[in-house]
Amino acid sequence: MTTRHEDLRRLAAVSVPEAITALPGPFRQHDLAMVNDTTVVRLARLEGEFPWHHHDEDELFLCWDGTFEIQLEGRDPVVLKAGELFVVPKGVRHRPVSEETAHILLIEHPDTKQYGN
Amino acid sequence: MTTRHEDLRRLAAVSVPEAITALPGPFRQHDLAMVNDTTVVRLARLEGEFPWHHHDEDELFLCWDGTFEIQLEGRDPVVLKAGELFVVPKGVRHRPVSEETAHILLIEHPDTKQYGN
Repeated sequence: MTTRHEDLRRLAAVSVPEAITALPGPFRQHDLAMVNDTTVVRLARLEGEFPWHHHDEDELFLCWDGTFEIQLEGRDPVVLKAGELFVVPKGVRHRPVSEETAHILLIEHPDTKQYGN
Repeated sequence: MTTRHEDLRRLAAVSVPEAITALPGPFRQHDLAMVNDTTVVRLARLEGEFPWHHHDEDELFLCWDGTFEIQLEGRDPVVLKAGELFVVPKGVRHRPVSEETAHILLIEHPDTKQYGN
């Protein structure tokens, strides 16, 4: 992780809106920044349904624009609008679903796998 | 940390704009969410100059609204506008300075002290 960590700990500001325009497509995550060795801030575009999965770690979703739903196994779904965040606790099966385009920041452990464990 | 962690890992969405209106004043940090045991997302209002300090950990600043400057010892300052983020590497003396009101999200280790080490 060291090289990637150092690359990402760049000494310049990172613009979320500019990074959004550079995303190659839906569900193609882009790492914006590393914080310590424990935390990565990732950007993604949501469009439609993502597969059900779970992680061995917590995962924070911050809705940057648009709106989407986080469906949770055994619990009511959580709807996020721009400026709202939610932490999916580790081990909880979930999937984000958006009817239209939404952009999110993910705050999670660098080892957290996009499609789960 | 366990009790606080569990309190913050609530199963409801958290609205950043609503939390901003509830802030008691400038530089009065409010914890929005915990992610794993390693990461906290904090909200703060900036107005004026904050004292110079450093941390033993990295600290991510995300400008939510307004604009401010992160002054860095021995380096050029970094100006952040809404939607821009910057990671102050551990050990680097710094201070945020804003001429007008700005709101920020901080992403950092829960043990990171507001006024530094």
